[in-house]
Amino acid sequence: MRHESVFDELKEECGVFGVVSHPEAAQLTYYGLHALQHRGQESAGIVTTDGYSFRHHRQMGLVNEAFNGEILERIAGPTAIGHVRYSTTGDSMLTNAQPLIFQSAAIGQLALATNGNLVNSERLKRELEMQGSIFQTTSDTEVIAHLIAKSRKPTLEEKVKEALAQLKGAYALLILTNDALFVAQDPHGLRPLSMGLLGDSYVFSSETCAFDVVGAEFVRAVEPGELLVLDGKGMRSVRFAEPARRAVCSFEYIYFARPDSDIDGINVHLARKRLGKQLFQEAPAEADVVTGVPDSSTSAAIGFAEAAGIPYELGLIKNRYVGRTFIQPSQSLREQGVKMKLSAVRKVVQGKRVVMIDDSIVRGTTSRHIVNLLREAGAEEVHVRISSPPVKFPCFYGIDTADRKQLIAADHSVEEIREMIGADSLAFLSPKGMIEAVGRSDSHPLRGHCLACFDGNYPTETEAESVLEGQAR
Amino acid sequence: MRHESVFDELKEECGVFGVVSHPEAAQLTYYGLHALQHRGQESAGIVTTDGYSFRHHRQMGLVNEAFNGEILERIAGPTAIGHVRYSTTGDSMLTNAQPLIFQSAAIGQLALATNGNLVNSERLKRELEMQGSIFQTTSDTEVIAHLIAKSRKPTLEEKVKEALAQLKGAYALLILTNDALFVAQDPHGLRPLSMGLLGDSYVFSSETCAFDVVGAEFVRAVEPGELLVLDGKGMRSVRFAEPARRAVCSFEYIYFARPDSDIDGINVHLARKRLGKQLFQEAPAEADVVTGVPDSSTSAAIGFAEAAGIPYELGLIKNRYVGRTFIQPSQSLREQGVKMKLSAVRKVVQGKRVVMIDDSIVRGTTSRHIVNLLREAGAEEVHVRISSPPVKFPCFYGIDTADRKQLIAADHSVEEIREMIGADSLAFLSPKGMIEAVGRSDSHPLRGHCLACFDGNYPTETEAESVLEGQAR
Amino acid sequence: MRHESVFDELKEECGVFGVVSHPEAAQLTYYGLHALQHRGQESAGIVTTDGYSFRHHRQMGLVNEAFNGEILERIAGPTAIGHVRYSTTGDSMLTNAQPLIFQSAAIGQLALATNGNLVNSERLKRELEMQGSIFQTTSDTEVIAHLIAKSRKPTLEEKVKEALAQLKGAYALLILTNDALFVAQDPHGLRPLSMGLLGDSYVFSSETCAFDVVGAEFVRAVEPGELLVLDGKGMRSVRFAEPARRAVCSFEYIYFARPDSDIDGINVHLARKRLGKQLFQEAPAEADVVTGVPDSSTSAAIGFAEAAGIPYELGLIKNRYVGRTFIQPSQSLREQGVKMKLSAVRKVVQGKRVVMIDDSIVRGTTSRHIVNLLREAGAEEVHVRISSPPVKFPCFYGIDTADRKQLIAADHSVEEIREMIGADSLAFLSPKGMIEAVGRSDSHPLRGHCLACFDGNYPTETEAESVLEGQAR
Amino acid sequence: MRHESVFDELKEECGVFGVVSHPEAAQLTYYGLHALQHRGQESAGIVTTDGYSFRHHRQMGLVNEAFNGEILERIAGPTAIGHVRYSTTGDSMLTNAQPLIFQSAAIGQLALATNGNLVNSERLKRELEMQGSIFQTTSDTEVIAHLIAKSRKPTLEEKVKEALAQLKGAYALLILTNDALFVAQDPHGLRPLSMGLLGDSYVFSSETCAFDVVGAEFVRAVEPGELLVLDGKGMRSVRFAEPARRAVCSFEYIYFARPDSDIDGINVHLARKRLGKQLFQEAPAEADVVTGVPDSSTSAAIGFAEAAGIPYELGLIKNRYVGRTFIQPSQSLREQGVKMKLSAVRKVVQGKRVVMIDDSIVRGTTSRHIVNLLREAGAEEVHVRISSPPVKFPCFYGIDTADRKQLIAADHSVEEIREMIGADSLAFLSPKGMIEAVGRSDSHPLRGHCLACFDGNYPTETEAESVLEGQAR
Repeated sequence: MRHESVFDELKEECGVFGVVSHPEAAQLTYYGLHALQHRGQESAGIVTTDGYSFRHHRQMGLVNEAFNGEILERIAGPTAIGHVRYSTTGDSMLTNAQPLIFQSAAIGQLALATNGNLVNSERLKRELEMQGSIFQTTSDTEVIAHLIAKSRKPTLEEKVKEALAQLKGAYALLILTNDALFVAQDPHGLRPLSMGLLGDSYVFSSETCAFDVVGAEFVRAVEPGELLVLDGKGMRSVRFAEPARRAVCSFEYIYFARPDSDIDGINVHLARKRLGKQLFQEAPAEADVVTGVPDSSTSAAIGFAEAAGIPYELGLIKNRYVGRTFIQPSQSLREQGVKMKLSAVRKVVQGKRVVMIDDSIVRGTTSRHIVNLLREAGAEEVHVRISSPPVKFPCFYGIDTADRKQLIAADHSVEEIREMIGADSLAFLSPKGMIEAVGRSDSHPLRGHCLACFDGNYPTETEAESVLEGQAR
Repeated sequence: MRHESVFDELKEECGVFGVVSHPEAAQLTYYGLHALQHRGQESAGIVTTDGYSFRHHRQMGLVNEAFNGEILERIAGPTAIGHVRYSTTGDSMLTNAQPLIFQSAAIGQLALATNGNLVNSERLKRELEMQGSIFQTTSDTEVIAHLIAKSRKPTLEEKVKEALAQLKGAYALLILTNDALFVAQDPHGLRPLSMGLLGDSYVFSSETCAFDVVGAEFVRAVEPGELLVLDGKGMRSVRFAEPARRAVCSFEYIYFARPDSDIDGINVHLARKRLGKQLFQEAPAEADVVTGVPDSSTSAAIGFAEAAGIPYELGLIKNRYVGRTFIQPSQSLREQGVKMKLSAVRKVVQGKRVVMIDDSIVRGTTSRHIVNLLREAGAEEVHVRISSPPVKFPCFYGIDTADRKQLIAADHSVEEIREMIGADSLAFLSPKGMIEAVGRSDSHPLRGHCLACFDGNYPTETEAESVLEGQAR
Repeated sequence: MRHESVFDELKEECGVFGVVSHPEAAQLTYYGLHALQHRGQESAGIVTTDGYSFRHHRQMGLVNEAFNGEILERIAGPTAIGHVRYSTTGDSMLTNAQPLIFQSAAIGQLALATNGNLVNSERLKRELEMQGSIFQTTSDTEVIAHLIAKSRKPTLEEKVKEALAQLKGAYALLILTNDALFVAQDPHGLRPLSMGLLGDSYVFSSETCAFDVVGAEFVRAVEPGELLVLDGKGMRSVRFAEPARRAVCSFEYIYFARPDSDIDGINVHLARKRLGKQLFQEAPAEADVVTGVPDSSTSAAIGFAEAAGIPYELGLIKNRYVGRTFIQPSQSLREQGVKMKLSAVRKVVQGKRVVMIDDSIVRGTTSRHIVNLLREAGAEEVHVRISSPPVKFPCFYGIDTADRKQLIAADHSVEEIREMIGADSLAFLSPKGMIEAVGRSDSHPLRGHCLACFDGNYPTETEAESVLEGQAR
Repeated sequence: MRHESVFDELKEECGVFGVVSHPEAAQLTYYGLHALQHRGQESAGIVTTDGYSFRHHRQMGLVNEAFNGEILERIAGPTAIGHVRYSTTGDSMLTNAQPLIFQSAAIGQLALATNGNLVNSERLKRELEMQGSIFQTTSDTEVIAHLIAKSRKPTLEEKVKEALAQLKGAYALLILTNDALFVAQDPHGLRPLSMGLLGDSYVFSSETCAFDVVGAEFVRAVEPGELLVLDGKGMRSVRFAEPARRAVCSFEYIYFARPDSDIDGINVHLARKRLGKQLFQEAPAEADVVTGVPDSSTSAAIGFAEAAGIPYELGLIKNRYVGRTFIQPSQSLREQGVKMKLSAVRKVVQGKRVVMIDDSIVRGTTSRHIVNLLREAGAEEVHVRISSPPVKFPCFYGIDTADRKQLIAADHSVEEIREMIGADSLAFLSPKGMIEAVGRSDSHPLRGHCLACFDGNYPTETEAESVLEGQAR
């Protein structure tokens, strides 16, 4: 949950939430999206249906900025889907705010909310346009709507299946019509998507933390390649693709998900604490205090401290009030040492040997900055321990890592990185240690995670060309 | 730093910051106020002078909402004071946003920023009005300006001294003119106010965390009853009152101040950790996990856990994105268990005996809510430990505690409170234990703190009538 | 120019403006749209191209609210088109704000601005959707873009011609691409569209008053069924349809156009003055003063007064500051006589026989209101003279008349209307008198005007079904 | 009513409106201010009392921008005063928006709304400040409040009288308390202020046009030096000063007031028409058409045309939609002839000898611009006739004329001015002709008008020093 950070190096795409047949579906979706706010802060949107027509509201900004009681009143309706989108640096992109809504004589009204990234969307879009389709957004998601609208299949369910079969990439997808809710996950299950039950109403959410907030019970994860259809006849599960090697994104455990979410039954806070313990096993350090980079590394730091028997301290403090319009200090002020967001606590680290736990190193600039903060505050030694393996390959499934040239671990050894960030020692967690610490129940330990950013083995077939594209950028 | 909480029970008045003779004083004040943001979120303001006239900007909202680069550019000037004010529920109160600015042929331009509360302001105001003065705000601070304007003393310094001598209460005060900066603290030193040095420029701040942010060195605290005058002739210290019994507000250590601030040389995080250790000494508990109420109780919880040898866990997670316009769930949704801001982490607390550390109990409603959250998430036992003594008396020095009737500890025993909040056990820290754990260097351990909210011994003479007024309310 | 009136009974669709190859095209379009503001106040938009890509800005509100210097700077470019849209009562319709922009691999970037109304757009849209097209707006104009995108013709010019050939209705149309500007008018020439020259740059405008504002010379009207193509090779005129019976909307002369515009070489103010003179010839009145309903009837009233030798007076005064958010008086205040927008001048009309000139009667409520105002102010007699024939049929070409049931003249005789509005006498101008007074140069006097709203003879073939639809509404 | 013009040369201060004891006083004040909107567009404000406390709303912008139904609901109350303020070029001046509100133990709550200008406010303010008063605004009006607050008289009525006796200048003044409304006019009666009756409720307004709008009957003008007190005992009239030579501002008839207002029983439109007739008597012209500069000169132009027997035409058209944020054309566009706000109608003036009537010439730039517009549109001759005498002296009573150096008639003969503005002939109305045409009923024709801007005879004693100050500026 350090996503609003000015020095964040990883960004994710989105969160989705849906409720079927509940009298306060719009309000529940509001609370659900609010619980998923860490997955995206650019825009928020909700679409509801009363079985006849849609009501909707989408706006730039946080969930509680985008909605108020009057708006929720206006869009009230028994079935709803919602979406939060992550913050970009570009112009206002309200037209890209989801759920996207489409309507035509052929397919009626359709609202789509997705979390993830298609790797073949550009090609599909070009083909559709050459046949006369006109796109209104730059969003992947619109491609799905056009594929459905163009399908010659007789029923909407078959149209949706035909459309999904053409997609490659990572996606958790909700499609709302006035008659039904369609819920789908990509064949590799890259992004989490869970089903819950609130009374008699099914709810769906990118993370289970939203279930706790709305009082729903977790039922099960939506399966890779599964399409759920919820309509007047109840819920049924169909397949639009053969399930492939299961490959949930490792960074959901390491960094993205909220500590109180469970992914496939494993609590994220506890998994991170085990990552910290494992990290101590693999790379102990002689030190006086352990500190974590708030907030995402706190759990791992506590785990490390407990395993090491070294006190865990708040050696770094984050200002909670850094917002989107924060003014960067001028060059001269930066040189005078004006800090924006993160402070080292002098009385805690002065004269101490400090273990600093972080969840990842992407470009290395943040780590160098933090090591420097600690040294300026008087730390005698700074030992950096990272609760994930080195990130060497770009992600094509919705994480906004830098391109490969900017990934410090792509071209540098651990020792080189240590020197670049100015630490006294540096260690990363091993892939094997990471998998074991997370503890997914798959019998074969290397299965079940997408490790592409660590080892370059992309689960979808397009990886080769994508990497090449990525390098060409 | 849990001040934006929807269930906060304590609120403080403000933070002040000032810089003398620095080319980027306005920007530094912006960063300083940002570091003090936890002391007030209602409005922010900065006034600068170039020696000839003032420039200023004041606005409702957070520092980074109230200011942008263009505004800072417009108000640039070598000497600046700034202010953050806490959030009230009333109407827009922009006219009360500080620094307040006054101007007259008698005193020239004057800007005032204060943190604290006067206990005799109503009487002073009435007297001034009967002599023909007209007040524009409902702020205590305006009284000070009118006293200065009415003074018949020949120099501004003497006018200020005469005015300050009439005030009773708690205040850290900055007065800016085009020629000088006046810095004063009340005779009891109730609110913290520190002096720092940034190159050759003096800076003043309610808390030292702002010094770290702007790169300044801490010099010393401003003393009770001291008036500092900084003008073309340098800085000199004069006295406007005999220093009284030193009585810094205990809650600055317990709750208000940022963990990375030092008050009178004592780091707040470490003091809180010691409060937690002391709390374990006084009231141990048999348990499986220790958790703190984020964020203000985290340090105490870690201290307790270390002393007890029980694992410290994130058993409660706070949603960072609850803002001022957050919609409260409807009654029916509340009954269904929709939670707004704080979640208990089921996998962490389920089936466990949990020690829940909080910094204080005021009305008790928050504690009951949190105990309930933990139980719903499956906690087997909930042992509540409070890192401060019971709050039995209202504060008249700037903390917005409820009036006496609402203070649960005013009329109830610890056992009664335990029952009301539904805990398996409950213990508060003893006043003596609190003082020792904080460890202020005064030779006599009972000196140096204001303990009025715990024991009713108010440092100023007006306490008796004030309490009576308070009870009459 | 009484379009902002709270009691307006006629509303028109839009105004368009375009400039080709001028270094300050965006600014000129801003001034041009400003001169056309009376044709639409809901939204304003400008799209420019530098030959490579579009820049644009569209916003709800008036031209000078929607644009500022910074925005014009940002969208600067040598070729531009713009649009003003009339005010509706519905929700925010920003997505309908023109120029609409489309983009695809098949047709590149396309921006469309239209004034008018298609009568077969619903049917065309349905056909396109059944082939898989998805529409984003409820605007007629999007149909044109989809027809172009779907066309299998090899060049864009041929695609545009094929698309236009399928349209039925009234339209003045500008289509901008990165390579060319297309300018077209429907085969009946229902809406005015003129070509001007500013230095070497062609400009196009719904009304000539915009040419005066930007300093351009009038060249000629765009002809019915003509398509102008302006690209790197210069300007060429092609035909996409046989020119039909010329049928310019009569209400452009009577009401819509600005008095300083010329339509087909005839100045609107002078035409209106002749309408007033003719009206006196057809229906003189014994009276002391002549007054017009400001502002649209002023010219006709002056003409009537001059012909009659009766003084023209400001007997009715309009408040210029009635805006979109004006609060209607409560019922009790209305009964007390609170007036909103129009006042009768007591000293001018008291004890006088007043001729009140208005341009049209649609539902009759406005006329009754004004007659009543004059009587309350003491007028002894009120003789209403209308400078157009009775409106008996709805318009399908872009004028928002009420449906047929609401047209007072559809079901009532002149004498009945007189009684309903409370006038001492009432007369309308004859169609023949109107045509002669306007003085269009066509040899056959009945040619050249669309008189459908007076006589039901719709120039396009779909009139019959349209009227039926209209009645069914 | 051409006050929103970008080329206006005269600006006035304000309008005031008040209602006593009417259940919908706030709404009535809203409509009243709306009718006075032409007197000031910078800000609008209303204060009401229910006899116990004030409610108020003040905001920058037009009346219908500043208020909505919800706000009017919130400030509902049986007695109300309101104010509109004219537009300045400076920063946001919301603190100067009236009615100003003051409160103290000595005088209770006080709200003041004034129209006019004090000539001795600076001196009074300085004296008050040296006694310890602190001012919050730069408004004259605050001086009045401080004088009242400082007064040692026993009753509020006597305090008000004592305060008014110290003022010099022009003012129409409303003072609201929770018990009474005080209404006063300066001893010379420079600004109009009328009393009306709406049922049993007294209303007061700067102009009578507001009475027509709210349905009130005109009773009489408030007299020079009169103080009306309306309280629980009814209304009584007292004197705070001997009435001086009556001197109503001539420009109220010539330019400021709405044509449908009566001042001292004389209708403004009819007075202007007589000014036009008189102008023709004094300075006839051989011409083909007469045109007025819209909107303020329309009545005079009609009068001239009727007297001359020359057709009155709309030779100049004003764009109604020029607002406060209108973008000025760049220099290059200005040279190309881009016009902003006023257009000459080519078909009307081409080849014609044109009489152009305007109400005044201040700096001459506007007249030159308009003459030029007419010539560019083909006018053969342009004869300028001004319906007032030459403005040679600055105004100190609330009209924002340029200082003396900028008044073209201060230093130039009529022939010189004619040449500077490029007219074929130029004539001003004589002072005597103006007075006769307006037709005020005073027995001595030179009495009753303030003619200071024409002849330098200022009615208040401070004129000499003021003129000197004015020249020194």
